[in-house]
Amino acid sequence: MSKKGLKKQQKEAEKLAKKQQRQAEVAEQTQASEQEDYSKHCYGNLPLIQSTEKPDRQLRKAKDLTEADTKVWLRGRLHTSRSKGKQCFLVLRQQQHTIQALLSVSPTISKQMVKFTASITKESIIDVEAVVSQAAMKVESCSIQHLELFIEQIWVVSAAVPRLPLQIEDASRPAGDDDLATVNQDTRLDNRVLDLRTPANQAIYRIEAGVCRLFRDTLTGKGFVEIHTPKIISAASEGGANVFEVTYFKRSAYMAQSPQLYKQMAICGDFDRVFTVGAVFRAEDSNTHRHLTEFVGLDLEMTFNYHYHEVLEVIGDMFVQVFKGLQAQLASEIETVCKQFPSKPFRFLEPTLILTFPEAVSMLRENGIEMGEEDDLSTPNEKFLGALVKAKYDTDYYILDKFPMAVRPFYTMADPNNPKYSNSYDMFMRGEEILSGAQRIHNPELLMERAKHHEIDVEKIASYIDAFKYGAPPHAGGGIGLERVTMLFLGLDNVRKTSMFPRDPKRLTP
Amino acid sequence: MSKKGLKKQQKEAEKLAKKQQRQAEVAEQTQASEQEDYSKHCYGNLPLIQSTEKPDRQLRKAKDLTEADTKVWLRGRLHTSRSKGKQCFLVLRQQQHTIQALLSVSPTISKQMVKFTASITKESIIDVEAVVSQAAMKVESCSIQHLELFIEQIWVVSAAVPRLPLQIEDASRPAGDDDLATVNQDTRLDNRVLDLRTPANQAIYRIEAGVCRLFRDTLTGKGFVEIHTPKIISAASEGGANVFEVTYFKRSAYMAQSPQLYKQMAICGDFDRVFTVGAVFRAEDSNTHRHLTEFVGLDLEMTFNYHYHEVLEVIGDMFVQVFKGLQAQLASEIETVCKQFPSKPFRFLEPTLILTFPEAVSMLRENGIEMGEEDDLSTPNEKFLGALVKAKYDTDYYILDKFPMAVRPFYTMADPNNPKYSNSYDMFMRGEEILSGAQRIHNPELLMERAKHHEIDVEKIASYIDAFKYGAPPHAGGGIGLERVTMLFLGLDNVRKTSMFPRDPKRLTP
Repeated sequence: MSKKGLKKQQKEAEKLAKKQQRQAEVAEQTQASEQEDYSKHCYGNLPLIQSTEKPDRQLRKAKDLTEADTKVWLRGRLHTSRSKGKQCFLVLRQQQHTIQALLSVSPTISKQMVKFTASITKESIIDVEAVVSQAAMKVESCSIQHLELFIEQIWVVSAAVPRLPLQIEDASRPAGDDDLATVNQDTRLDNRVLDLRTPANQAIYRIEAGVCRLFRDTLTGKGFVEIHTPKIISAASEGGANVFEVTYFKRSAYMAQSPQLYKQMAICGDFDRVFTVGAVFRAEDSNTHRHLTEFVGLDLEMTFNYHYHEVLEVIGDMFVQVFKGLQAQLASEIETVCKQFPSKPFRFLEPTLILTFPEAVSMLRENGIEMGEEDDLSTPNEKFLGALVKAKYDTDYYILDKFPMAVRPFYTMADPNNPKYSNSYDMFMRGEEILSGAQRIHNPELLMERAKHHEIDVEKIASYIDAFKYGAPPHAGGGIGLERVTMLFLGLDNVRKTSMFPRDPKRLTP
Repeated sequence: MSKKGLKKQQKEAEKLAKKQQRQAEVAEQTQASEQEDYSKHCYGNLPLIQSTEKPDRQLRKAKDLTEADTKVWLRGRLHTSRSKGKQCFLVLRQQQHTIQALLSVSPTISKQMVKFTASITKESIIDVEAVVSQAAMKVESCSIQHLELFIEQIWVVSAAVPRLPLQIEDASRPAGDDDLATVNQDTRLDNRVLDLRTPANQAIYRIEAGVCRLFRDTLTGKGFVEIHTPKIISAASEGGANVFEVTYFKRSAYMAQSPQLYKQMAICGDFDRVFTVGAVFRAEDSNTHRHLTEFVGLDLEMTFNYHYHEVLEVIGDMFVQVFKGLQAQLASEIETVCKQFPSKPFRFLEPTLILTFPEAVSMLRENGIEMGEEDDLSTPNEKFLGALVKAKYDTDYYILDKFPMAVRPFYTMADPNNPKYSNSYDMFMRGEEILSGAQRIHNPELLMERAKHHEIDVEKIASYIDAFKYGAPPHAGGGIGLERVTMLFLGLDNVRKTSMFPRDPKRLTP
């Protein structure tokens, strides 16, 4: 071997040795890092939050984040997660808002931390510290599409069990999307705590709260006083059918089917204009899309001077204010519901369209429906009439006035011009009844006469009749089903979609 | 007879004849007027108001009248009337407002009209046309003291029966005015339609509506969502005692004692902050001044980040906003109640005073009360503590934090620093409890353990425990009795004074 050859060999040997040393060092480092876990203070399960301390840490809402925010803490649910080698993509959810978050192995994020993150069960509540960043591309799968989070810390506040009875993604999917799983109504209701987390449900119950609030605020603005009426009553009102019986100490009592009597007593007690929001109970064995055994009644009653149309105008305008308020204040929630349950925007006229019952009968007859002058409207005819009215007047909401006397309760005032008809009205949304009301008889003798005519045991309603003996003003009112209003405003197909914990003949849980 | 004598005699005879003729004429006129009744178109009984016409007549509110008004129409109740020869003095009442009205025989007001007016029964509803006039002297007996009405027409809209079961004047009298008649509680409640017409009751229920409105508006402003929870439930919550049973089709069900479970489910369903206003039922055979079997619950529940004191502050501030709102917006109603039921103005601190249970025990012990560290507060001790707090801090409202674990429900979170105590609190007004609340256990395993410790059948509450299995945020809340808040704010002595139609073990009517 030449000197030159030797030197070369020596050099190569040195090179190899150095290379081997480097490899050994890297291997050692890697092994050390696997043992050591340099991120171990940045993830894990938090101890139970038992109000031990009050840290000075601000938890942010994803919907309020901007690019100007750098590093933030957020608490939310792990909506979905997907791990891919050294990376993990998460979607964090706060109510109806979702944002993408990611973490990948790096000098500050250990393999173990990524592995831990990938093992967090969906729906667990987590705290993350993250750097807010402009999304590289629009995040189609999230409600927040222009930002994403680079996670630096992740802690589990409350872990969900691994097997969920339903997937939020499935429960959030539009109906009719046949290729992908959806969740049926009973599974939803049986697992309402999960089902309520869908964006549509988050929106629906905010809209329902809006209906209530706008109902009350509008009426308060018109001089109404809120009252509360008893739900347990001593005698079954309005005849006695369809009423739940309750054991009241050593006797029997009943669950009120409506606050009717009590609203009228408040009127006779000089409250002039009253409303009440509360549970009403119907022991009807009706298993339909629009019947519940317990629902929320929005009831109102008011005196008038000369004509019950004074009341009709107040109620008509109240609904217009509710609809306007919903469309103005809850537009984004309405849009969210529409994404899962598509419907046409709710149309209404101002002032409210008022048709008479004979006009409705004519419209139906002109369109091939056979019905008598004094027949009540059947549910299909109501629906058909709604379609005819929509086509002719472009409104989803109208009032039908002057129902036949024969189909209304005994306390309804007759039409002075035609005793076959009455001073009573229903209101409709998308062809379904949402309010029933009337001028009430305020004269005790006439009330007695009408009760007898309806073959009602007048002894049982003596206290009702007595209420009118001490001077009673002319008055009218109505009762509204909250769940129906919300359902029909949103064009939903089932009242169980707008009752948070619905009750029907077959369902008493959760 | 002389010529002179004859002439004189003749003259006198003529005089007499003339006089007789004049007398006859006057008599004829008087008789004619009595028969004719020149005011007959100005008074009488109106036919039943059946919505026959829509006259263009404005009916005014007495409280809005000014001297600039000349002739007006008003509808109101005949509060009192007093006739005196050819005059009749009336007091006309519209809700809590009263105004004096008079009429006396004149060329436009017949004797018959005055007689008719004097015969109108008290509490009848009447329409009057009258000239508005500055009162000759301050009308002490009316709420409107500077104006009076000269009646030109008077019509009865709805007549009251002559014998009333109670007099509004008696029912309106301050308690303790021994010389004059007052009305006992049962007579009032049995005839609530009349009793509600007193100025104090008109004011009380407007104030109660204010409590509800301010509760809701304050919480809505703080991001709470209103929900509605079922009243009919399948299993008796919280143990099963004191619950009303109801027949639900072919099975048994129960009336909810509180919306507790449902509020918490809404929290687990991601609503973050919720409130609900509704009937709650307690089958307790308690016949006290502060217990009802059915009352209105104002309930709220919210998530927190680290410490339940975050919630305590929200609730504390909510009450401050309610009290401030009542004093600002309903000052005149509060004054009206005080006239009949005198009390000292309600005092409160901002921010709310928070004491701990051990502090309360010390205060009571220092003042001679013997009680153990972990004993619950008895009702007399609560009242006494309220007096001590009032004397020391000048507040009628405070929060008592950190109740002993032993006296709270199984779902209450223990104090992390001392397991004998809990993260729970009551709120008091004038020494009486009006809210009970706590941090709730949000971990299903711990909840199960605590239920077993309380010897609760965990199978019966399985669905409650399940609600926390899918990720549950730390949360706390409370339940408030509406009638108690109104009663204690006004310093009233009985919760039946703030329940429009109260229910107790002995009362189920009207």
